[in-house]
Amino acid sequence: MSGFTTGVASAAERVAAAFDRIAEVDRPEVFISLRDREHALAEAAGIDARVAEGVILPLAGLVVAVKDNIDVEGLPTTAGSRAYAYDPEVDATVIARLRARGAVVVGKTNLDQFATGLVGTRSPFGAVRNAWDPSRISGGSSSGSAVAVALGIVDLALGTDTAGSGRVPAALNGIVGIKATRGLLPTTGSVPACRSIDCITVFARDLDLARLAVEFVSGPDGRDSLARDDDPRAVVLPARPRVAIPTPEHLDGLAPGWPEAFAAAVERLRATGVEIVEVDIADLLEAATLLYGGAFVAERYAAVGEFIAAHPDLVGNDLDATVASIVLGGAEARAVDLYRDRERLDLLGQRGLASLAGFDALLTPTTTWHPTLDEVAADPVGANSRMGRFTNFANLLDLAAVAVPAGFVDGLPFGVMLTGRAFSDRALADLARRFLSPRIDLLVVGAHLRGQPLNVQLVAAGGAFSEAVETAPAYRLHALPTTPPKPGLVAVASGGASIRGEVWSLPAAGFATFVDALPAPMAIGAVTLADGRVLRGFVCEPAALVGARDVTRYGGWVAYLAGRAADARGGAEARGGTDARAGADAPAGKADARP
Amino acid sequence: MSGFTTGVASAAERVAAAFDRIAEVDRPEVFISLRDREHALAEAAGIDARVAEGVILPLAGLVVAVKDNIDVEGLPTTAGSRAYAYDPEVDATVIARLRARGAVVVGKTNLDQFATGLVGTRSPFGAVRNAWDPSRISGGSSSGSAVAVALGIVDLALGTDTAGSGRVPAALNGIVGIKATRGLLPTTGSVPACRSIDCITVFARDLDLARLAVEFVSGPDGRDSLARDDDPRAVVLPARPRVAIPTPEHLDGLAPGWPEAFAAAVERLRATGVEIVEVDIADLLEAATLLYGGAFVAERYAAVGEFIAAHPDLVGNDLDATVASIVLGGAEARAVDLYRDRERLDLLGQRGLASLAGFDALLTPTTTWHPTLDEVAADPVGANSRMGRFTNFANLLDLAAVAVPAGFVDGLPFGVMLTGRAFSDRALADLARRFLSPRIDLLVVGAHLRGQPLNVQLVAAGGAFSEAVETAPAYRLHALPTTPPKPGLVAVASGGASIRGEVWSLPAAGFATFVDALPAPMAIGAVTLADGRVLRGFVCEPAALVGARDVTRYGGWVAYLAGRAADARGGAEARGGTDARAGADAPAGKADARP
Repeated sequence: MSGFTTGVASAAERVAAAFDRIAEVDRPEVFISLRDREHALAEAAGIDARVAEGVILPLAGLVVAVKDNIDVEGLPTTAGSRAYAYDPEVDATVIARLRARGAVVVGKTNLDQFATGLVGTRSPFGAVRNAWDPSRISGGSSSGSAVAVALGIVDLALGTDTAGSGRVPAALNGIVGIKATRGLLPTTGSVPACRSIDCITVFARDLDLARLAVEFVSGPDGRDSLARDDDPRAVVLPARPRVAIPTPEHLDGLAPGWPEAFAAAVERLRATGVEIVEVDIADLLEAATLLYGGAFVAERYAAVGEFIAAHPDLVGNDLDATVASIVLGGAEARAVDLYRDRERLDLLGQRGLASLAGFDALLTPTTTWHPTLDEVAADPVGANSRMGRFTNFANLLDLAAVAVPAGFVDGLPFGVMLTGRAFSDRALADLARRFLSPRIDLLVVGAHLRGQPLNVQLVAAGGAFSEAVETAPAYRLHALPTTPPKPGLVAVASGGASIRGEVWSLPAAGFATFVDALPAPMAIGAVTLADGRVLRGFVCEPAALVGARDVTRYGGWVAYLAGRAADARGGAEARGGTDARAGADAPAGKADARP
Repeated sequence: MSGFTTGVASAAERVAAAFDRIAEVDRPEVFISLRDREHALAEAAGIDARVAEGVILPLAGLVVAVKDNIDVEGLPTTAGSRAYAYDPEVDATVIARLRARGAVVVGKTNLDQFATGLVGTRSPFGAVRNAWDPSRISGGSSSGSAVAVALGIVDLALGTDTAGSGRVPAALNGIVGIKATRGLLPTTGSVPACRSIDCITVFARDLDLARLAVEFVSGPDGRDSLARDDDPRAVVLPARPRVAIPTPEHLDGLAPGWPEAFAAAVERLRATGVEIVEVDIADLLEAATLLYGGAFVAERYAAVGEFIAAHPDLVGNDLDATVASIVLGGAEARAVDLYRDRERLDLLGQRGLASLAGFDALLTPTTTWHPTLDEVAADPVGANSRMGRFTNFANLLDLAAVAVPAGFVDGLPFGVMLTGRAFSDRALADLARRFLSPRIDLLVVGAHLRGQPLNVQLVAAGGAFSEAVETAPAYRLHALPTTPPKPGLVAVASGGASIRGEVWSLPAAGFATFVDALPAPMAIGAVTLADGRVLRGFVCEPAALVGARDVTRYGGWVAYLAGRAADARGGAEARGGTDARAGADAPAGKADARP
């Protein structure tokens, strides 16, 4: 096997295509350095040869871009500063692991300098423009990596994440970004931002490929003193997952259209059978303020502060002024205040996690807005700080997160994020997979309604009840002479009525299986609801109506069944009853039933 | 059931006895405050009444002393300073849990002020004198608690441990001290020393009682933000545990007689079937130096530094000058240096724990010496710093530890400690139990030797091979006509020889079971070895010698068996062989065999 690339193209072809694509997109700010094309092609040809020999390389020929704060042997590591740059002698652990499985690195990507920022503009190598709209920011700090994936240059890219750097740019460029539980991916061979909470992250257009890469690069390497083994008590999703969402006050200030997009994402996840509950996340948000608002910023100084302090002449030139200001701000913080901030964080974390007890994840927008390059230039710190509302607390509180695309607002990507406890990575991925899988809404009006005999078929297909609805007043309902009894919903040009039914949401694969198994005379067609929506629904073939009774006046199948049962019990009284029931029991005019 | 106190005495009698003992021992420095005797007796009477009603109180009537940095409702919490004292409104979590199970608190014990020290002399309430020798220190900081247990005033005492405070005084007073994995015992209601690494600890004379108390007070309380659930992947000892001991260079500077005492303790643990391996613990010892030598001391300032700084007039009076100096030293440490120390600690911890990989515990002396009060007064910081060599690193590196008595040197207690990974608490206790269980050495000379058919009986009894030996030259060996063939070892007044055998070490319970199952004519008596030691060994009843052959000249049972086998194989040549064999084959003179 050669995994994700089987049958697509040879490694050499894929690498060549990547270099061609780099030239084609004309985004010189995305990469800080590129492999020599011929060297990369030779490496790819070697992979093709090994695959041909039967060597198992599950990532054979996957093209990878690497954030330039992660070491790749043969290319300098700049962390976004020419003065800081060094030539690493060996690959970072995660790089070595990808290459050992056949992936090919093509270059090192631009970033917010020293991984300090969520905007993608804080770099002497140029502001990274958004993949979808070059007037807007890419998001950061893993800016070039996210854009390289979004533009189709590479299959995978590695980033880092201390405050959201592996998630915000995923959201703004419409791709997947995974910040796994801290310590699962060794940081050996990367430039620290805040060493104790830094994470290596993975970007891809496809969730499953991103997860595969995470699995392949995870595990202690004996060198990263903060690396952790995965927890064998792996969290598995329950049959009916529970997901928290923020209460409305913590969703204020989202960009125009984003509240509606988030609401739609919530409904989309709910439609997969997930229970959604609003939860107050005030403690989590307050914890996030400690990231830059307290003594924790001293950890950034511990990482690169002395270098910046030694080069005041470079500030505003090779050293980004905003980044320098933030990092130097950590020089004088007192250790005692750090302990106090830590105590506050522990308390907020305890309370914040207690509020999420019993939930499998927290669903939020990934970020809060998508500014233009100009907006960020006008207010570098303020614009940036708005980006991290939902990402900043995860690293501080040892949480895992997956950022996934959730559609578009005004033609630009909108993203949501699932955040959960440490070591809940696989459960988060399962939730994300449910969210991303295409689903189809199906109107049912008879034996598939809740409580009716065939409802189990919808459940077995992965369906979830969405809502009770009525059709447009353009249908008649017939009781077909089938076993079990089923209704026939028939559109009529005139004399129609609204019929009660239920909308069920099915995953595409489940829907296909379900439809494939339907017996005649049932069929799936387009049905119009009272609110004007058109969706898939049960209709029936004309021949089914022979011998059927028109039961439209009951307004729905369940009411008809109840009336019939009352008739059977009540005998003469019922038959001497209301006009409505008497009328309903009369055979339907066959002419009405035909379209 | 009423657990450990069943049948011993009523709760009221036990509490009354504790107060009587307090008066009797005349150690006024041990307690800072005492419950009102009548109140405590009334509480005890209430417990007796509930037990009589059938209420299950597993600690009913156990008498408890509490270090005075842990809240007990109704008594002030001083942390060793009258000026700092406050009146807690509720019990600390651990106290509430003990009381809920029937334990009765009698008082609050003296301590090194703010739990800063390992000596027990840093208190305005007086230096706590050792339970065994009042000219020597008790050890600290949980000085009064350890001495109260050692003097038999209380059954249990609670302490705290940040650098060894729950272990060093256990060693110096000859009792058990358990520092469980950090976070298992909630610290809610205790005065922090270094909040992030503080532990509540338990002292008792008996390991099982101490463990029981630990189990009863463990578990998150929803208030301590650093509390942790026990790990369900509980570590269980393998059939043949492996224990590391320090290489000789890290055992230098021990008090006179202590190297020999530690060596004896190592042999005692080895004799229980534990594999002992020397390991270089340099990284652990270097990690320990960070506790006071770096920015970590700022956490002590975060705890009580502002209080001390606000009361300079009290230093040297109510505030211990040494403690004040240490704590105030943390005021100006920089956060960036704390991060650097943390990085160094992570590295040392990673390497130190790697060196212990594959081991179930590290066995060390608990402390390095036992100074007099005068020696500590002469050099308060230097004398103290020598105490923590083997304890200081445990809290910093998230290790668990159990300190147990290991005999006496010059009439004073000597203690050893088992230190292991977080959540290895039960495995450490099992090792400690093996160490503490009385064992009996048994000489075997025949069918119980290694490789012989009945050896399995010794293994099943928990026995471990100790050494190959020879008896004093005062025995004759007979081959008895039993099935399987067994030797009879017979002491003779003259004409005896040395017989080869093996010493096996058996736990007392296993020894008893083993002896109880012996068939006639075998018996266990006292046997003298060539080196003069007298220990239990196999002898036989006189009647057994009827029809037995004297095989003394083989020098041992295995040699006899080999010779007999050679005879069977060799036929005539063998029978025409040496004098020795011919002599051995001759029947034993019966007169010789009688005592």
